[in-house]
This record gives sequence, structure tokens and C-alpha cells, in this order.
Amino acid sequence: MNKRPMTDNSWTGSCPLPLNPQDKIITLAHGEGGLLTRQLIEDVILPGLGKAAISSQDDAAVIDLPQNRIHFSTDSYVVTPLFFPGGDIGSLAINGTVNDLLVSGADPQWLTLSLIIEEGFSVKVLSDILSSISRAAQQAEIKIVTGDTKVVPRGAADGLYINTTGVGVPFSSLQLDPHKLQPGDQLIVTGSIGRHGIAILSAREELGFEPPPQSDCQSLREPVNKLLLAGVSIRAMRDATRGGLATVLHEWAALSGKSLTIDEEKLPVEKQTQSVCELLGLDPFFSACEGTMLLAVAKEEADIAVQALRESDVSKEATIIGEVQVRKSAPVTIRRILGIEQPIDEPIGSQFPRIC
Amino acid sequence: MNKRPMTDNSWTGSCPLPLNPQDKIITLAHGEGGLLTRQLIEDVILPGLGKAAISSQDDAAVIDLPQNRIHFSTDSYVVTPLFFPGGDIGSLAINGTVNDLLVSGADPQWLTLSLIIEEGFSVKVLSDILSSISRAAQQAEIKIVTGDTKVVPRGAADGLYINTTGVGVPFSSLQLDPHKLQPGDQLIVTGSIGRHGIAILSAREELGFEPPPQSDCQSLREPVNKLLLAGVSIRAMRDATRGGLATVLHEWAALSGKSLTIDEEKLPVEKQTQSVCELLGLDPFFSACEGTMLLAVAKEEADIAVQALRESDVSKEATIIGEVQVRKSAPVTIRRILGIEQPIDEPIGSQFPRIC
Repeated sequence: MNKRPMTDNSWTGSCPLPLNPQDKIITLAHGEGGLLTRQLIEDVILPGLGKAAISSQDDAAVIDLPQNRIHFSTDSYVVTPLFFPGGDIGSLAINGTVNDLLVSGADPQWLTLSLIIEEGFSVKVLSDILSSISRAAQQAEIKIVTGDTKVVPRGAADGLYINTTGVGVPFSSLQLDPHKLQPGDQLIVTGSIGRHGIAILSAREELGFEPPPQSDCQSLREPVNKLLLAGVSIRAMRDATRGGLATVLHEWAALSGKSLTIDEEKLPVEKQTQSVCELLGLDPFFSACEGTMLLAVAKEEADIAVQALRESDVSKEATIIGEVQVRKSAPVTIRRILGIEQPIDEPIGSQFPRIC
Repeated sequence: MNKRPMTDNSWTGSCPLPLNPQDKIITLAHGEGGLLTRQLIEDVILPGLGKAAISSQDDAAVIDLPQNRIHFSTDSYVVTPLFFPGGDIGSLAINGTVNDLLVSGADPQWLTLSLIIEEGFSVKVLSDILSSISRAAQQAEIKIVTGDTKVVPRGAADGLYINTTGVGVPFSSLQLDPHKLQPGDQLIVTGSIGRHGIAILSAREELGFEPPPQSDCQSLREPVNKLLLAGVSIRAMRDATRGGLATVLHEWAALSGKSLTIDEEKLPVEKQTQSVCELLGLDPFFSACEGTMLLAVAKEEADIAVQALRESDVSKEATIIGEVQVRKSAPVTIRRILGIEQPIDEPIGSQFPRIC
């Protein structure tokens, strides 16, 4: 595939004044499109992105596709703190958009990267985040093809916001449609739920747990590849981000008109996630994941799907957690360990703000 | 062209609690992916975008293209104030990305729209901006196919930031390449320069000029269509945004290895732009446009290009302002009205922060 991408005008040109990442901060002038913007891009951003970025002197990213259909997805990342156990805003901005494309049934290929930086932000910290972006993009096998850099005055943003917008090409063998869930379909999760939300909350509120809870921030490319290789026909997939597993279950219940029931004893929840939730009166169902997805597959394919998923380290804990049923009074329920079946509510707001 | 687009999960679902745009503000809970996010999207965002948005219950924007090559461009908009004479952050976010695609040689077709909203922002003001987005998108003949909404706490952003990322399909008849500028090529601008920067500065600093200077915020689709219809072979086009006309001239001079010379007496500058610049010691060369572009065309096609451009209201002031020459000591020069030729410097930072 020939890729001839590039950069809007803020990514081109050459610049005589080297920026030293060790002792510099970002100023408003770095965002104004002149020499200093080119300097920031050429001395900090492009070297930071390394092999993850395709850079040229062309005027806009030009991409040659293997086919005529694309999937297109956008997300802005405003997570605080910028660094957390298991990731940072950079790896999150890559994995989040990569995973959105994957669960829509597409092979993620190209990303744009747009930075809104607060005046006074450390160039060293920016470089660290760019390195993390580079690693995550290479791991997820996606290329950054164009970008934008804005600087806003002190107090007008909270350090750094990142937008990534991705283009992928559909996997021809996947026909995902949560409208078509059937009674008997099995629900599978690829790992322990709620880890990202709890990691962010613990880091932001400095709760002091040892070891600190880790985010599951990671690309789902390998698990999806394993499923494709195994030829599993998946009815629906969704990464359980904002709003957690409960939100995905409610969306699928609404789209399909079925009820979705999960078994508490089958649901993988890390001991630490559980402890933090119990301590703070939270519920892991509503806590975000950032590299863990829910799948619905026909009953006869469920074991093959779980086996395929377990071949990847990312989804080695994959397990069946419940099933689709004909619509009952509650759209989403949980069978508690003691046998009682209870409804799971749809979250109205969130227990965890600014987790992505 | 079959478009089956979509929306990430934040754009789907149904919601029971109507939001009244007249008396509501945005809260953190509106950004957390639960019921309130769906309410914001269904009661405010999608109705506000109206016909400009393609909405469905699918899981990600799926686009069928007429061909295998796309152009891809991203920009974040952080302009302050949000409303200014001649436009607002919404129309700017559409026209800016549309124009970036056009001047890269592509027909803009699809956009993503990502909002970062500060807690406490007025739903009424958001609705007004969405209406402006809708009008601008319809005028520019582009569809908004997916989006994202984040809310950050009070003090963590400055009202509203918008990212738009666009996909266009290349115009087969255009082969733009500023490397190939030739001595004798004519430089054309499509209208008076520097209007956007001066409008923003006047509005932000409340300079009190009457009438207030107007931004040129507009789509360049019609002028580009007129050029294509006339069959003009354009060597290079660029909208003169951040850094103004001077930045484009310097980029082209660097890419081509030629010198670019403009005639002061031919350069269209509105009287009001000139007065504000003189009063404040600024220079219209460095002031941004947001709907005015520079073109380079072969000498024998220059008059045809100007005639074609003048058929559109957007570029009715189009005129030849200078030419490409063999490289002299200065890459960019201006022949002053009194006959002296002076270099124009490349801007280092900007005289005008946060103009887009």
C-alpha cells in the first residue's frame, strides 16, 4: 500500500533554533504557526514520534487505500493525571482510537494527532508523552499521518489535551450488528473489568494503595486478530470505556430488544479493583476499561472464541460471563453469587470523571 | 455514493430526560458516557447539527468512497472570543478544515466533530454554535459523520475547544506541488488579506472600532470549483491562516528554492485592516486569513484564473499580486509603492495569538 502522507503546514519546513527538551517550556509563540511552531514540530514532535509518524513535505496527508470503504472514528482525551500506573494520556490517545476502530470491525491504519498544549508545559514532559505515543502506535501497527499543534494561555487548559482521529479498513469477514443478538448468545469479556477507572481514580486522588492499581490501557489488535484467525463469527464487540461494562450491556439490550444477564461468579474482577470499589462504595460494572472488551458470539462458537482470545497475553483471562435472553422486565441483570438475580442500572452520569 | 456513517457510542441510544437549551448549563456528568451524555447528544447536539450530521445507530462511521485515495486533515480550534464579527468557533472549525482539504487538492466530503466543553458552559450558547456549524457544513457541502463529547471541570478549559478532522477525495485534474514553482509564475490572492486576525484582535481586546472589522471566515469551495471549471492548471494553493500571507510565501520560497516578490500597490488590504495595523504597529502580511488563499499559476494562465475566481462572491476581489523569480538574496520581497524592494521576514512567533 502506497502511503504518501503528510502534515498540514504546521508540520513542514526547517528551522535553525534547536530546542533543548531538558530545560524548555512551551510558550504561546510555539502555537502561532511561525518559525517557533516549526521548531517545536521538527525538534520535539517529529523526533518524539519517531517511526510512528510518516513525515513529508507534502501539504496534506494523502493515503492510498486497499479498498473503497473506510471506518472513521474520533476521540479527544482530557484524562487527569496525564501519567497513571499502566499508561499516560499518549498511550491512551492511541489505544482508545485504535480500539474504537477495531470493535467497529475495522483494521486501524492511519491516525491524525492534534495537541492542545497549555502555555508553560514542560518540553521534557511533552517529549515523554510523544515517546509513549510512538511506542503505542508502533505496537498497535498504526501510522500517524498528520497533526496540529495549538498552544493556549496559562489557565486556559489543563496541561495537555490530545485528539486522535483514525481511519481503518473493514475486516471483510466481520459482520457486527448488536441489533441481531439472539437468545442463547454468549457474552465474553477479554479480561478483568474496571481497571482503568480505578487506576485513574487512585492516582488522581492519591489514595496511596500499594501496589497502585494498574490501568488496562492497551491495544486490542492481537485479540481481534486471534478471533479472525480462528474464524469466529462475532455478533458484536465493544470496548467498555466511559460508563464501563454496564453501559455496553445497556446499549446492546436497547439495540437488540433482548435482556442480557451476567453471572457474578464468572465475572473477572481483580482483587485490588474489588477492594478499592468496596472501600469507596463504587461498582466495577461502571468503571471504565481501556483495553478490555465485551463480545457476543453464538453459543456454539463461544468456546472457540475463548480459546482463541487466550492465545494473546492481552486477553489471556478471556471468559464467558453471561448470555443473551429473551426480553424480561429488566434489560440487564446479574445473577449474584448467592443466586439472586438483580437488575443492573444504566449509569446516569459517572462515578469517575475525566478518565479518558 | 453510499454513506453509512455513524457515531461512536457517545452518539447512540435514546434518552428520557429532555434538556431545555434556554436555562441549562453543561455539567461534568454530561461528559461521562452515561444517560446524560446521550441526552446532551440527542437533545442538543444532533438537533443543533440538523441536516449537516449523518446519524445512525451503527457503531462507527462507515464511508464508501468513490475511489481509493483520500486526503486527511486535522485541526483543533481554540479561538477566543468564541463569537467574533464574521463568524464564530463553529463556522471556523468547519471552514478551516474544509479549506485545508481544498488547498491540498481534495474535494472535502466528511468530517468528525469533537467537542471539549468546560463545565458550566451554557447549553444555549452551545446550541448557537452547533447551528453555526450546521450552516457552515451545509454551505461547504460536507457531512459530519461521527463525533465525541468531553466535559472538563471549571477552569480546565476556556469555554469550548473544537477539533474537526476531514476526509476528502482528490480532484483528479489538480497536481499541486509548490516545489515546482517556476520563475515567471504569477501569484494571485483571492481577497483582502489579514481580515481574520484583525477581526479577532479587535473583538478580543474590545478596541471599539465602528463598524467592527469582519473576519473573512468562509469556505473556499466555490472559488476552487470555478478554477476547476475553467481548467486552470494551478501549481500551488494555500489558505493563508496562522502566520498570514508571509508564512505561505516563505514556505513556498523554501520548498521551491525560488524568490517570491509581491507588489505593495497590487495587494488588496481593506482600509479598516490597514488602519488597525497602522494604529497598533502591526503588519497585515502576518495577520491570518480564514477564507482567502494564495495561488501560483503559470504566467499564461493567470488572467484566466483571476477571471474564473471573480465569478464567485468569495473571491470577487481576486487579483495578481506578484510573481516567482529566480532565487535572489531574500526569499520573499515586497516592492513598496515608492519603488524600493524590501525583504519580508518570516514570522518567528505571532503578533496575534489564538486566532484559530
